[in-house]
Amino acid sequence: MADIHAARRSRAQEKIADSGADAALITSLPNVRYLSGLVSSNAAILLPASGSGVLATDSRYAEAAMQQCPDLDVVTERQVEPALAALAVQLGFGTLGFEAHEMTVERYNALAELPDGPALLKPLGHLVEGLRMIKDDTELELLSRACAITAEAFAAVLPEIEPGRTERSVAVLLERTMIDLGADGVAFDTIVASGPNGAIPHHSPGERAFRPGDLITIDCGAQVGGYHADMTRTLALGQPQPWQRDIYELVAAAQLAGIAAAVPGADIDAVDASARDLIAEAGHADHFGHGLGHGVGLEVHEAPLMGPGRTGKLMDRVPVTVEPGIYLPGRGGVRIEDTLVVRTVAEVLTTTTKELLVL
Amino acid sequence: MADIHAARRSRAQEKIADSGADAALITSLPNVRYLSGLVSSNAAILLPASGSGVLATDSRYAEAAMQQCPDLDVVTERQVEPALAALAVQLGFGTLGFEAHEMTVERYNALAELPDGPALLKPLGHLVEGLRMIKDDTELELLSRACAITAEAFAAVLPEIEPGRTERSVAVLLERTMIDLGADGVAFDTIVASGPNGAIPHHSPGERAFRPGDLITIDCGAQVGGYHADMTRTLALGQPQPWQRDIYELVAAAQLAGIAAAVPGADIDAVDASARDLIAEAGHADHFGHGLGHGVGLEVHEAPLMGPGRTGKLMDRVPVTVEPGIYLPGRGGVRIEDTLVVRTVAEVLTTTTKELLVL
Repeated sequence: MADIHAARRSRAQEKIADSGADAALITSLPNVRYLSGLVSSNAAILLPASGSGVLATDSRYAEAAMQQCPDLDVVTERQVEPALAALAVQLGFGTLGFEAHEMTVERYNALAELPDGPALLKPLGHLVEGLRMIKDDTELELLSRACAITAEAFAAVLPEIEPGRTERSVAVLLERTMIDLGADGVAFDTIVASGPNGAIPHHSPGERAFRPGDLITIDCGAQVGGYHADMTRTLALGQPQPWQRDIYELVAAAQLAGIAAAVPGADIDAVDASARDLIAEAGHADHFGHGLGHGVGLEVHEAPLMGPGRTGKLMDRVPVTVEPGIYLPGRGGVRIEDTLVVRTVAEVLTTTTKELLVL
Repeated sequence: MADIHAARRSRAQEKIADSGADAALITSLPNVRYLSGLVSSNAAILLPASGSGVLATDSRYAEAAMQQCPDLDVVTERQVEPALAALAVQLGFGTLGFEAHEMTVERYNALAELPDGPALLKPLGHLVEGLRMIKDDTELELLSRACAITAEAFAAVLPEIEPGRTERSVAVLLERTMIDLGADGVAFDTIVASGPNGAIPHHSPGERAFRPGDLITIDCGAQVGGYHADMTRTLALGQPQPWQRDIYELVAAAQLAGIAAAVPGADIDAVDASARDLIAEAGHADHFGHGLGHGVGLEVHEAPLMGPGRTGKLMDRVPVTVEPGIYLPGRGGVRIEDTLVVRTVAEVLTTTTKELLVL
């Protein structure tokens, strides 16, 4: 793995040189993990445009850093950012790119107190996130395992869903099952939203017991090796009413349209529109308030974000979610979501059926 | 619960008035949860020094917000911060306190582009975090349940620890058991560090199999209702060698000294020193590189942080961890950690024995 991380750093260094900065201060922890392999709650990397990088972390992670990152200099220091910024000054760097989307104003102000701090610091942009969008084989393998575990756990839990069972108990069972099946953790807090709660896209599962006639939306994902799966299915408890079947079929059609549009080179807002227009034409524009999807990887929400007005193009080997929904306040809702890899024909990693399951 | 959140907002409003700001823009998500009860990945509160507050969140959380926060105006908007900052301008506020420790430079720059943005925005300081330090009965009850589940899960897993078992499998079993026992989730990724890995304070559990003669450090916690438990114990697999028993007894003594010192009114650096000095006097100053402990609550690491050079005093009803350790590179380590509530006599919530368990 050290080779993979070294290659990622080389690609980042080319971009840093292109940006005109002498070096970059990488403080976003998923970016630190991407470039070094180190999993830490307190670490940063000083990555010069050329030459070798320096990883700073505190004593809790220092030995792990030295073992895992043999070709990075490791500095053991609790205040990782001031230490690396001071080192940048000492090394004579004139401009230091920093991650303005991660750095807080308070931490920035502390760095700006260094001699020449304000002149030194320049926003780097989402440079590493840009590199992270296109996944290598190792990453796709981890994401694929996370998605397979998610689908397997979902299948295992389905027989347990019946009237009287609570949202929370199903969420707990799903999470436990994902761990049992080999997940390193859950990718995010599982959503189980039944009956009228289905109108709340990110409902926290509670003590509501399922009733016949409910639609039940379940949004869950496993995390494997740092990579996050994300899948949603909506089920019917007992024969669905016509309005329930109607919105289900509409969301399912919109979701397939979104997947079909998600090809390399597609404009992101056009992908969003391909699904959203179908929902809007059926009179539900106001009932689909969120974006169509997002990238997944070392973060459960990462670039590219796909929604109205978002710019950019999809590229080959970029994993994204496609997750349209319709939410009817007080009545219920439907959302269908897959994690897929953008290819000439999208590779859908979350393989649970999208037929309406009637339990 | 709406009453509790309203009372918390009133206390925050007094502090906002004291700070001289006309209103505060609360963007830290644990702070938003503390003041409103809303659990969301995208929400902010505009809280004036007097009068009622406005909660902004996107469509995924809007219905939950309206249900749970009946006495806050709810604005449904994806870009929550610009929406509330523009509202603050519209309402004629001249200064808007913002959370510089949470707000990124990129988001700040976007707000500063508003008319009068730079004049409007003033750092608020850690105002809400200050209020959050002292816990009310509801919070202590949730934290206490989280700690009880942690100790119960630890006890359930102990009989499974034997030579040949891997670090990772024990971490998975512990996490699953906490969920089974009613945790809403884990408070953080469980650490299981065996043999030489014990020298890495925040080791990620891997495929290393336990061997007779290992010390095994387990750091874990349950999360209940948003409140985070944090407990560490170190075990011996087979009769410990003298050096292992020596560092265990030293850490245990230092931990008790730290707990005894953690009383209302104590200086934080003196509490740290009470444990650290014992370890240093035994020649292990360089083998205890991290702070003595930290506050716990809606975040697993929150104010007050206790370490050398940290300032401030402990207060009644503040939950903290006390977690000294000794780490011997290449050989192994010991850490012992409790979550406790600072009272005249500290109330230790993680009740697992601190005798050296020999398995």
